[in-house]
Amino acid sequence: MSEVYAARRARLREHCNAGGTATALVTRPANVRYLAGAAPQGAVLLLGPEDDLLLCGDAPGGGRDHDARPDEALRVHPLPGAGGDPAVAAADLAAADGAESLAVEEHHLTVTRHRAIASVAPRLRLDDLAGTVEQLRVVKDEEEISCLRIGAEIADQALSELLESILVGRTERHLALELERRLVDHGADGPAFATSVATGPNAGRRLHRPTDRRVEEGDFLSVCLGAAYRGYRCEIGRTFVIGTSPADWQIDLYDLVFAAQRAGRETLAPGAAYRDVDRVARQVLDSAGYAEGIPPLMGHGVGLEIDEDPQLAPAAMGKLDACVPVTVEPGVHLPGRGGVRIDDTLVVRPEADGGPELLTITTKELLAL
Amino acid sequence: MSEVYAARRARLREHCNAGGTATALVTRPANVRYLAGAAPQGAVLLLGPEDDLLLCGDAPGGGRDHDARPDEALRVHPLPGAGGDPAVAAADLAAADGAESLAVEEHHLTVTRHRAIASVAPRLRLDDLAGTVEQLRVVKDEEEISCLRIGAEIADQALSELLESILVGRTERHLALELERRLVDHGADGPAFATSVATGPNAGRRLHRPTDRRVEEGDFLSVCLGAAYRGYRCEIGRTFVIGTSPADWQIDLYDLVFAAQRAGRETLAPGAAYRDVDRVARQVLDSAGYAEGIPPLMGHGVGLEIDEDPQLAPAAMGKLDACVPVTVEPGVHLPGRGGVRIDDTLVVRPEADGGPELLTITTKELLAL
Repeated sequence: MSEVYAARRARLREHCNAGGTATALVTRPANVRYLAGAAPQGAVLLLGPEDDLLLCGDAPGGGRDHDARPDEALRVHPLPGAGGDPAVAAADLAAADGAESLAVEEHHLTVTRHRAIASVAPRLRLDDLAGTVEQLRVVKDEEEISCLRIGAEIADQALSELLESILVGRTERHLALELERRLVDHGADGPAFATSVATGPNAGRRLHRPTDRRVEEGDFLSVCLGAAYRGYRCEIGRTFVIGTSPADWQIDLYDLVFAAQRAGRETLAPGAAYRDVDRVARQVLDSAGYAEGIPPLMGHGVGLEIDEDPQLAPAAMGKLDACVPVTVEPGVHLPGRGGVRIDDTLVVRPEADGGPELLTITTKELLAL
Repeated sequence: MSEVYAARRARLREHCNAGGTATALVTRPANVRYLAGAAPQGAVLLLGPEDDLLLCGDAPGGGRDHDARPDEALRVHPLPGAGGDPAVAAADLAAADGAESLAVEEHHLTVTRHRAIASVAPRLRLDDLAGTVEQLRVVKDEEEISCLRIGAEIADQALSELLESILVGRTERHLALELERRLVDHGADGPAFATSVATGPNAGRRLHRPTDRRVEEGDFLSVCLGAAYRGYRCEIGRTFVIGTSPADWQIDLYDLVFAAQRAGRETLAPGAAYRDVDRVARQVLDSAGYAEGIPPLMGHGVGLEIDEDPQLAPAAMGKLDACVPVTVEPGVHLPGRGGVRIDDTLVVRPEADGGPELLTITTKELLAL
């Protein structure tokens, strides 16, 4: 794996050189992990003209990335003593090495940290690395996609087991906790994000946080979960009906959201504009009169973070590439009544390779449970 | 409750006026919640010379504070449309209202957001609010302490139930998940932080992230957990021995850490210097020759965040007040062998009120399970 990380750092170095900066400081944890193979608590990556250095904070062994190991080809520099900011130490080292400028992640560094870096190395010109590493992360290699695929299998499995159990009378909170336990049972590092279970009037709300409401006959039940596997995070969302037969309004609403989600999925192709995927799904909902209660975006990239570039939203600029994993997740929520969300993770693939690869394969038929 | 939040905002307004700034922008979520009663996803609080405003992001209903409701006396201003930053909108409003300066939380705002605020309101002088709100949060009222007390009871209960079950053969991950489920069963909003369960050579490591290692006979088992209750977060840590009788080295190490923790607890009093609490506990460990493997601090404040001011650390400046809840959590970790941590949450109280109030009452005898 070491060559993978070295190659990623080499690409970042090219970008920096093209931008006129030979040295860069990466602080955002997912970016550090992408380039270094691991991001121990507080660690930062100093990318030098030739040599790179991982500076760790004072809590080695802590943090979310406990299982990951840094690239062995990378020099690792533990900070002596407590309380020091590795980003400040990195700037100090860069200045001592004669660097003239340092590109930093201004969208991640706070004003206070940025000032501390400037004051330890007053002769260093601080540039903005901006979202360079995030952009490098958009297109995944097959190793990364394989982690997402395994994560999706784990989430599918956890969900299918839940569906076999009795649901009526159980609370949203308990169902969410049980799903998370099953994710870990099946080999996930943990949940990819806080599992959402929404019943009755809560169903269909994006990012709904589970409450003590119990599942009742006749409810819509919407579930959104994902597994983190080797750091990679996927997402699946499904909506079910509780009881023997759905009401007509439930069937109509489900069919509509399903049609919107299918339209979005079918638009995924290399070269498709981000906003077109959003538009195609959104207009199915719009044309049925649901301009309200529709989420601000129809999908987003996934990877080391659950919400990455690209955003599939009305104002998004850019086009899809092959090997970009995204969610397609339209929904409608009717206040007081509930609603429907359907959410898949797919990988953009060219037509010649069979089109978009669906990672989350749980059925999207409307199941009455 | 509304008067509580209004009184907190009035105190912040006094601080700001004393600092020469009539208008402040609070962005750090725990600070927003402290002053507004809730912090919906992305919400910011604009504290004006007379009137205050809560500006919400585009994901109402999402976020961690779903159960909390904003102070009803507060104007709530939802942002129209997607993608706008409420902090930028707030600065725009402040400038339109004729404000000359705006104090912002430079330790929370990124360089990019700070620049966006400056560019939308170029005539507004941006000052640093620094840790003003964090300092207001240090001393708790009895309502806040009552939330911490209930949270501690929940954590005690979850832990005592776990101790009644069979532990040998179960993995760290599963024990941690079971503890988190029990926290929710007993009424917690959720875990206060990622529950840590550490066995054998992992035991005693601060912030250890649970692995697939199984509990074995003869192991040390250290557990650290906490409940979030109405937003308030407490912490308890205990170490046990698995099997019929602990080894001599285990008893000796346990007794040592217990003595250090007791010394720290007994130092808690209004007027005690933060660093003295650290020193008193630390020197018990130092004098036994364990300068290595000791955590960088012996405790910290808790409240709306699990790690707040004060820090009970060697270089900390300041003195304890009454009604400040803190942890006392010394530990020793011996690489390859494991170790011991003992962690309580206590509230500083004057001698006349009976001295420090212990919130986490699970026994600290060395139990062999």
